[in-house]
Amino acid sequence: MSLETLQRKILPQIEAALQSFLEAQAFGSSQPLKQMLSYHMGWEGENSGGGKRVRPFLTLLSALAFGGQIEISMPAAISIELLHNFTLIHDDIEDRSPLRHGRPTLWQRWGIPQGINAGDALFSIAHLAILDLSKTCNPSIALQAARYLNQVCLNLTRGQFLDIAFESHDSITLETYFEMISGKTAALIGLCAALGGLTAGQNEEIVNKLFDFGESLGLAFQIKDDILGIWGDPKTTGKSTAGDILNRKKSFPILFGLGQSPEFRTLWAEQAPSPDQVEHMAVLLEMCGAKDEALKKAESHTQNAFQIFAALFPHPLDENEYALAIAELCQQLLLREL
Amino acid sequence: MSLETLQRKILPQIEAALQSFLEAQAFGSSQPLKQMLSYHMGWEGENSGGGKRVRPFLTLLSALAFGGQIEISMPAAISIELLHNFTLIHDDIEDRSPLRHGRPTLWQRWGIPQGINAGDALFSIAHLAILDLSKTCNPSIALQAARYLNQVCLNLTRGQFLDIAFESHDSITLETYFEMISGKTAALIGLCAALGGLTAGQNEEIVNKLFDFGESLGLAFQIKDDILGIWGDPKTTGKSTAGDILNRKKSFPILFGLGQSPEFRTLWAEQAPSPDQVEHMAVLLEMCGAKDEALKKAESHTQNAFQIFAALFPHPLDENEYALAIAELCQQLLLREL
Repeated sequence: MSLETLQRKILPQIEAALQSFLEAQAFGSSQPLKQMLSYHMGWEGENSGGGKRVRPFLTLLSALAFGGQIEISMPAAISIELLHNFTLIHDDIEDRSPLRHGRPTLWQRWGIPQGINAGDALFSIAHLAILDLSKTCNPSIALQAARYLNQVCLNLTRGQFLDIAFESHDSITLETYFEMISGKTAALIGLCAALGGLTAGQNEEIVNKLFDFGESLGLAFQIKDDILGIWGDPKTTGKSTAGDILNRKKSFPILFGLGQSPEFRTLWAEQAPSPDQVEHMAVLLEMCGAKDEALKKAESHTQNAFQIFAALFPHPLDENEYALAIAELCQQLLLREL
Repeated sequence: MSLETLQRKILPQIEAALQSFLEAQAFGSSQPLKQMLSYHMGWEGENSGGGKRVRPFLTLLSALAFGGQIEISMPAAISIELLHNFTLIHDDIEDRSPLRHGRPTLWQRWGIPQGINAGDALFSIAHLAILDLSKTCNPSIALQAARYLNQVCLNLTRGQFLDIAFESHDSITLETYFEMISGKTAALIGLCAALGGLTAGQNEEIVNKLFDFGESLGLAFQIKDDILGIWGDPKTTGKSTAGDILNRKKSFPILFGLGQSPEFRTLWAEQAPSPDQVEHMAVLLEMCGAKDEALKKAESHTQNAFQIFAALFPHPLDENEYALAIAELCQQLLLREL
């Protein structure tokens, strides 16, 4: 089956499992709390339609590639998606983002107190989901999966701590930047791949390699995203040109530029640059080598991901349609147009 | 051993276990995140000194009363205390409380975004703690405990949802009030007693009874607290007279009064009553039977708790010093001076 066929087959199953898991929780007089979660997940309210569910899809593909089964690994897949959405609810409050996917964020509609609380509820539900692995796999796998999940949660809060702290500091080393995106983005992608293998009965060595594969993929993806945030075509990305400069995002090219280009540093300090200045700043970044360096880093993490992948799934891949689909998915994620 | 001797013996062990568990987590470049948690737990900063740790103490007493051991049940005990503290961090943001135990709250010192994130970190750490039961007990008990914990977490968010929603509604039924305090206060006390029994190897029937015992205790405690919030002696409670009226807290006597006394309802609608008016409002509540009704409810939940307790630990209690200590602890919690 092609990647597209697999997506058409598996994504609706993920969506149904997510919905029925939320539906199965008791909310008593607190039905509006359930509605908030349902709104955030994209099942209620204007412009509803759900998310791309890339993470649980990767979890299931990773399980299938090792001979696993969708039903057995599903609790892990939906747990990761619920966890991811919990982080989005809290991130939106922490960043004061009023919109997500073109609709008001949860806190924007129901206020900060209910927003924090709804995030906490989703966090608990994500945990209840992972514990259900004791029914589809066995207690020891369920425990191991819950432990991985919580280690990654703690990493997420470490990454988020750095991200918030960054807002008021210009002098961040690139090393700290990598620690931040490892925690915030890459660890969760690592978890997707790892839990796929774990729930398909793979040993610790393979599970760790899967984690490393996903983490490298996540790092490459994030740096690619950083490049697109400055030099991406607005028609393709749906974002404004050099949007990350306007939004003062501490992305890889910007941090690199702050270290290398005194002129960029001076303009950055001005806080509210004009559109012309923003365009000039993007040129300055390119001139000081920020784009090349970012491309090089993204390439190196991509290479790393594919090397680990090749060791996990030796050629020829033709015999393993699911591994083939993972490779195709990676390419889709990483080879987006600049 | 008397309750006091047991407290002197066990509380330092709880404190040490809490500290070393936090210490064991990897924080990398995010050391300040660890410091925030350490500050909130009362180990760092001005007026440090830790909390009363009633919850983990009850967990351990409950385990000991069934022949359990401190070291075996400790992961459950500290997990509950960490969880409780996570809820305090988020509650303080949701209520905009600037002070706790006479010191600035976490969000007040580090801002709302870092406050939300630090709470999330502590939530993850609480989960990691409970999963450690697989080392001291066995995988099946660890899983069961984690499941109970997360069910209670979800209940907490349901209770908190109602509490926040209450702020903008005056017409709350007493039924909804009980649903709120069940979720917010009582379920966690129920969990303490239940996990003590579970980690001491008791079966589901006993564990459920322990939960009901703790829940009744928690309900009685909360209503007592509501009474003290209006008629308590400021010298004993450390709070201002009729403070709950000033703070517009939707407590049991106030909700009862809003339903029963038109005069109280009118004064309540005025929003900023003078000290004289507040005193008058407390008298109105007493006159319409709010205090009597609250005392009756508290008494009925207390009776219920002691009845379940008596069935779990038949007389004479002399042979079970730990059960005796639990009974004494309940009395301490419930028989506070009015």
